[in-house]
Amino acid sequence: MSLKEIARLLAEKDNFFLATHVNPDGDGIGSLLALTLALKAQGKIVWPYLSDQIPDFLDWLPGKELIRYELPEGGNWTAIVLDCGAASRLGDKAGPWVQGLSQVIVLDHHEVSGTLGTTRYVEITFATAAIVFKLLGQMGISLTKEIATNLYVAIFSDTGGFRYQQTTAETFSMAQKLIESGVNPSEVAQRLTENFPLSRFCLLKKALSRLELKASGKVAISYLSSDDYLSCEAGKADSDDFATMFRTIRGVEVSALIKEYKPGEVTVSLRSRGHVNVAELAAHFGGGGHRFAAGFRTKGDISEIQQQLTRKLEALFS
Amino acid sequence: MSLKEIARLLAEKDNFFLATHVNPDGDGIGSLLALTLALKAQGKIVWPYLSDQIPDFLDWLPGKELIRYELPEGGNWTAIVLDCGAASRLGDKAGPWVQGLSQVIVLDHHEVSGTLGTTRYVEITFATAAIVFKLLGQMGISLTKEIATNLYVAIFSDTGGFRYQQTTAETFSMAQKLIESGVNPSEVAQRLTENFPLSRFCLLKKALSRLELKASGKVAISYLSSDDYLSCEAGKADSDDFATMFRTIRGVEVSALIKEYKPGEVTVSLRSRGHVNVAELAAHFGGGGHRFAAGFRTKGDISEIQQQLTRKLEALFS
Ligand SMILES: [Mn+2]
Ligand SMILES: [Mn+2]
Repeated sequence: MSLKEIARLLAEKDNFFLATHVNPDGDGIGSLLALTLALKAQGKIVWPYLSDQIPDFLDWLPGKELIRYELPEGGNWTAIVLDCGAASRLGDKAGPWVQGLSQVIVLDHHEVSGTLGTTRYVEITFATAAIVFKLLGQMGISLTKEIATNLYVAIFSDTGGFRYQQTTAETFSMAQKLIESGVNPSEVAQRLTENFPLSRFCLLKKALSRLELKASGKVAISYLSSDDYLSCEAGKADSDDFATMFRTIRGVEVSALIKEYKPGEVTVSLRSRGHVNVAELAAHFGGGGHRFAAGFRTKGDISEIQQQLTRKLEALFS
Repeated sequence: MSLKEIARLLAEKDNFFLATHVNPDGDGIGSLLALTLALKAQGKIVWPYLSDQIPDFLDWLPGKELIRYELPEGGNWTAIVLDCGAASRLGDKAGPWVQGLSQVIVLDHHEVSGTLGTTRYVEITFATAAIVFKLLGQMGISLTKEIATNLYVAIFSDTGGFRYQQTTAETFSMAQKLIESGVNPSEVAQRLTENFPLSRFCLLKKALSRLELKASGKVAISYLSSDDYLSCEAGKADSDDFATMFRTIRGVEVSALIKEYKPGEVTVSLRSRGHVNVAELAAHFGGGGHRFAAGFRTKGDISEIQQQLTRKLEALFS
């Protein structure tokens, strides 16, 4: 079904249940809120649902007060699922509930999306928000500052601030139109990139103090123990970008960060400049991802995991 | 003189000496090389001059092999001065030499520019490269990938990767056209932002280990000693972005980094989110800058400077 046809379908319906994936990101939540505000402007009833609390760095988005953390009771809902295409990605509660609805529209940009939905529109574009942007055009919605800010945040998040591979001329063309609709780009950038808790810098100091280069400088590896998270009063999110940061070291092809969030429970993040496919490396340890960014979870002792991983990484470059 | 008239003036001349300010940045060098390649495409003789070595992070720009580090001997040169408007900014050698030429065209975007030039075009835009972009249009130059990459690097550098205050819809419109001319935006972003020497991370660890919050968390302050630079085998450039990084701590309004590059010789960088004007603070210590970023140089003992500065900063928020 084309976006024009989906716009026509939306015009016929009155009650919309909107959802995105668990652990929602800027693209998912920005798309969700932009479409919520657009549908409400057309007089529709909208139930924008999140299974998890909105993350701190997005807890200022226009319309965030509309978000519901519980499912509706009864009612004749049309579901719109954003930024994912499988029921399992919606969480234990919303997944089965959405599967029981007779009309489910999926708008997604993932190559491996799933089969959820009575109507599916999957376009491998830079952000789900780019699909929503085009859909709003078909719906005849004029972009308010509030809608445009949600879409801009989504695009900024998904492209790493116009830096990742999927950034194209179209990305910039949309950004231009969103700014013309009232977005303040430097304010958004500051909110998204300049709002780190002090606990993040405490953790960073610890990760830097254990940073080691291997394989003649092609591999950077470090770890954080559960004691580190405790003593820094830090959460998982605080170390989110460290693996990516260690990939920025000149000469490093692959970076790895071993994170023991709880004693004995370890998550490993892998980042690559692209010459090595870290999804394959992660698969070896039972994980997944893509060429540039992948990871896996395991149980055990940090130093043993570090030794195993280092051996694997050194073998890649020997 | 309009850009149309400047384009007409350039068409009449054959020999061009191009220069930018000392300690050249991405905007200056990108503008210089873009205009060099454009004039050469029109069959002109071009002498693109830098007083200082091209910095590492730009030492891949298309056309960089054309750069001259010495002045020409004789010849009937028309000078084009980019990204500054005062002879003093061109350095001890090029400054006086350019002042002796009969035709000097200044293309600049600084509010306080200077009086150099027989023809001056100063537009307070997001980057000098934006002026060059428009001039090339008037000259009828078609953008090659090489020219476009130089302009994109200049715009990316000047706007902090589309994040600073001066980022506008026009910034994105130009970026779109440059990508359509062949620029690879993720490759440029990786080259500009993911190419740090290990010595930078060594210094960062030391700066983080001395990081202190003052004034109920509104001030972040740290220092690096000359021993730190020595033991990390680090140069000045390695700590360039630390003060900006410490401003990203939630709640911090002003950040300060005290850097002792040589024993007893201290440079202090100040960054503000904008509520406090750090240019005024820097002026108190004999320095300067603007509201968001300023600094000063001084001689003396790090801990004494830290005490003085902390007192001043705490007074601002008391
Ligand atoms: Mn997503
Ligand atoms: Mn400059």
